[in-house]
Amino acid sequence: MRQFSEERDWLQFHDPKSLILALVGEVGELAELFQWVPSDKAKQRASKMPLQARAAEEISDVLLYLVRLADELDINLVEAANRKLDDSQKRFSIEQFRSKAPGSSVLDDEVE
Amino acid sequence: MRQFSEERDWLQFHDPKSLILALVGEVGELAELFQWVPSDKAKQRASKMPLQARAAEEISDVLLYLVRLADELDINLVEAANRKLDDSQKRFSIEQFRSKAPGSSVLDDEVE
Amino acid sequence: MRQFSEERDWLQFHDPKSLILALVGEVGELAELFQWVPSDKAKQRASKMPLQARAAEEISDVLLYLVRLADELDINLVEAANRKLDDSQKRFSIEQFRSKAPGSSVLDDEVE
Amino acid sequence: MRQFSEERDWLQFHDPKSLILALVGEVGELAELFQWVPSDKAKQRASKMPLQARAAEEISDVLLYLVRLADELDINLVEAANRKLDDSQKRFSIEQFRSKAPGSSVLDDEVE
Repeated sequence: MRQFSEERDWLQFHDPKSLILALVGEVGELAELFQWVPSDKAKQRASKMPLQARAAEEISDVLLYLVRLADELDINLVEAANRKLDDSQKRFSIEQFRSKAPGSSVLDDEVE
Repeated sequence: MRQFSEERDWLQFHDPKSLILALVGEVGELAELFQWVPSDKAKQRASKMPLQARAAEEISDVLLYLVRLADELDINLVEAANRKLDDSQKRFSIEQFRSKAPGSSVLDDEVE
Repeated sequence: MRQFSEERDWLQFHDPKSLILALVGEVGELAELFQWVPSDKAKQRASKMPLQARAAEEISDVLLYLVRLADELDINLVEAANRKLDDSQKRFSIEQFRSKAPGSSVLDDEVE
Repeated sequence: MRQFSEERDWLQFHDPKSLILALVGEVGELAELFQWVPSDKAKQRASKMPLQARAAEEISDVLLYLVRLADELDINLVEAANRKLDDSQKRFSIEQFRSKAPGSSVLDDEVE
């Protein structure tokens, strides 16, 4: 992505806020693909064309801008993500969080 | 991410639309970090604490949900992203797009 | 929102790109509220506390930044939205689009 | 929006999570309009065509889905937003927050 952008002299556009807006644009395209698909059919629809190819493209676009942003900010993305996952493993103990999405008290039917 | 989610029995929550919403949540946290930072100071501020660590965390969270989503949809993320980058290299020729962000006619000062 | 921001001397932060990032942050918080709620229970959960109050707050935050952005760009939001709705009424004729979400060919089970 | 959607029998698609994804899609289109515009020229560019019309359209789309979502959740949007603004006026006192964006300690140059 850095080389691709350099060759086109596009690095001048890649300040962090602009890259985040570009990322938001791609996330928006991904959301549009799935917005009206019934929840319980989304996975199956995405296993077939045309959604399969379109989803792969939009997810890729999100990744490419994320990689470009991490590069611009001198963040080693793989290291940072592994560290975050390690943290989450400690923070959300298996015993305490089994079958409970974090923050799911909000979701609890009984809660008044 | 798959193993982490499996161990907590969280895969039940990971239908595609829910994962995209989780991704949106993390992109929102990333946006919040930078929203009021002046554009021309964002990169420099992100090279120092505390923004450096916070940005690395939020970018990681976006990646982790993106990886989980790709896995759920049986998309090989690295292959798909390389394919997308190859396509972009053909679509945006160096000659034609040098110094021009795609879609930049909208940005053109002269345009009426 | 303009007066509120002026009194705190915050208008200096409100260039369009920053306001869009702030909007993204609030949309992210809204998404987080619903991400792990089962699709078919979301409406009912949102009719009760605590989700009812939380959803109202986050939807309000999105509106407040949207109003601030429209104001900053000298857009009459109510007029613009009515115009857009009129356009959509012409573009999506009742006969042709009944029960079909726009772009739903992507969703079509039969499509190969 | 309710009548528009009812006439096309689209209310069936409008569960809260789907509407939030649709909102995300429109916010993405808004972000794309501004992503490569230099921060300090964004307001001026948006005062002229073609960006002026395009921005008004995308901001309207965001509002229309937000209104539809509030309606679906039985939230009185105007009341809720006024309440939120009142809360913010108390929470962010003029004296304490003058010229300081909330959360701006992250932005502070001196912070180590």
